[in-house]
Amino acid sequence: MHRIPYQELFDTLLRVLQKLGFESERARLCARLFADASRDGVYSHGLNRFPRFVLQIQNGTINIHAEPELVAACGSLERWDGKLGPGPLNAYQCMERAIALSKKHGTGCVALANTTHWMRGGNFGWQAADAGVIGICWTNTLPNLPPWGASDPRVGNNPLIIAVPRPAGHVVLDMAVSQFSYGALASYRMRGELLPVDGGFDTKGQLTRDPAEIEASKRPLPIGYWKGSGLALMLDLVGALLSGGKATHQITSDPDRESYLSQVFIALDPSSVGTPEVAARIADEIIAYFKLPPHSGGEQVRYPGEQVLKIRSENLAKGIPVEPTIWSKVQAM
Amino acid sequence: MHRIPYQELFDTLLRVLQKLGFESERARLCARLFADASRDGVYSHGLNRFPRFVLQIQNGTINIHAEPELVAACGSLERWDGKLGPGPLNAYQCMERAIALSKKHGTGCVALANTTHWMRGGNFGWQAADAGVIGICWTNTLPNLPPWGASDPRVGNNPLIIAVPRPAGHVVLDMAVSQFSYGALASYRMRGELLPVDGGFDTKGQLTRDPAEIEASKRPLPIGYWKGSGLALMLDLVGALLSGGKATHQITSDPDRESYLSQVFIALDPSSVGTPEVAARIADEIIAYFKLPPHSGGEQVRYPGEQVLKIRSENLAKGIPVEPTIWSKVQAM
Repeated sequence: MHRIPYQELFDTLLRVLQKLGFESERARLCARLFADASRDGVYSHGLNRFPRFVLQIQNGTINIHAEPELVAACGSLERWDGKLGPGPLNAYQCMERAIALSKKHGTGCVALANTTHWMRGGNFGWQAADAGVIGICWTNTLPNLPPWGASDPRVGNNPLIIAVPRPAGHVVLDMAVSQFSYGALASYRMRGELLPVDGGFDTKGQLTRDPAEIEASKRPLPIGYWKGSGLALMLDLVGALLSGGKATHQITSDPDRESYLSQVFIALDPSSVGTPEVAARIADEIIAYFKLPPHSGGEQVRYPGEQVLKIRSENLAKGIPVEPTIWSKVQAM
Repeated sequence: MHRIPYQELFDTLLRVLQKLGFESERARLCARLFADASRDGVYSHGLNRFPRFVLQIQNGTINIHAEPELVAACGSLERWDGKLGPGPLNAYQCMERAIALSKKHGTGCVALANTTHWMRGGNFGWQAADAGVIGICWTNTLPNLPPWGASDPRVGNNPLIIAVPRPAGHVVLDMAVSQFSYGALASYRMRGELLPVDGGFDTKGQLTRDPAEIEASKRPLPIGYWKGSGLALMLDLVGALLSGGKATHQITSDPDRESYLSQVFIALDPSSVGTPEVAARIADEIIAYFKLPPHSGGEQVRYPGEQVLKIRSENLAKGIPVEPTIWSKVQAM
């Protein structure tokens, strides 16, 4: 595996973004968000996704100069228009705004319409936790998941992020509502492995662990079957209603032009009604119990975000793993 | 099946609650919340759960006279102490308060500590939607679900409710984070049926659709395996941190004395940043697309809450189905 220092990855992304015309500070933040995703092991939405991000700038899907604009506000709830600016920058700014609202009002919610792909959603959960507040955010996506009972994609594989600050290591859930993403299915297929559990339907309509069959049927499973199907719908509904923006059924199914997404950023500040010390103690106790050694050997229980910190530390020490072809491509940009 | 009119169910529950010493208005609300659960088809948390509710009053778990008290407030975020009052009343009052906060501030969040079982969580989602706002609420529970990778119960089967108001019929997701509740497992077993999908592990540690095996192993599956396991943990964390109350690991595993629960009630008012007409149109379009007729026959796609409205209408017309033994027991109270 090829590894490069974080700084080299960041500098390269920064150079390309500046060359594309990004204003200096925005280029720095955008490069950092991509580099952080790779640093934390979310390779699919870090460097590996950068070429498509550049393509979306070149094909006019993303307007690199657009900044989100406040459309309506009522106390701790605000509606913003993303104006098809770069998704990671729009999302970062809206989570910053939700955090600021929560520090003033206890809670803050920013609903963002007309944005583009935010890449790694977890970034914005870590952002809230780093600011000492609970962060909850999600996005809708293009239609790529059949709801339970249907065979054609009518909901999005909408990711939901819930982040809780903890001085000893934030707890951050970053999950999409399908059991396996198409990226994960491709990885299993290329390694010649079956999925560990059923991941979707085969072309005959039977549940299967064969990733290639699911890629062929285009019928991945929502988590919890009917439950994840319902959850996907609710995330789309709440996002579109609050932002006044578009819903999954209105978003192009061409991933190279995915745009007009609706997102929600919620921040809740526990320190506004309690003390950070008590909150930290409660979180530590919950995690300690969750990770109790098992009665019998061989078990491994991980809390959400635990693996991220381990990979982050390893990648900062040894360098960030990169796909040589993608790395060369980005270096040549 | 034995059916009784809604009014008769309500009157009977009301009489028992008044006999137990409930103040008149509180008895009416409590009777309504139990009757509404049965009316809407959530029999497990309506009449069927009433005897245990009475037991918890008699064994001192629930204090029928206790009312929640404001502990701390910051703008749109409030922390309340439930003082072990009746769970359904505490939850109703806190959702009312979250709704009121959202009408003033756009968003509202009430975190409730030291409460008792709220019975049917969906009630409080419908309550928010009836008030025209988006409602999100959840509770932690006693430890009854092994997280992914463990065989002993370290998380709760915490239910999450997300409700979106829609004039043509609210959309309300009311889901616990296990694939099947113990109540559902018992129902399948008594009918001699296998589960439609894997629901947990058998006593040899293999995934199974046999409900009796899962009851024996006490290892039901979280939805989405590792994903639902993480979601359960996050709901407990956020609930305990925001309320300053107890977490699942501190709650007795005796269901007859389940208490000191932590709950979160979030209300978001779309009308504060937009118009109800546009919100209704967006919701209608999303539901219409979700329920598109399938390309091939035999499919049935249901949105969350759709079945509730169908059952509600049928039960109001024909009477509420009751288990004769439970109904006799409650009538004799």
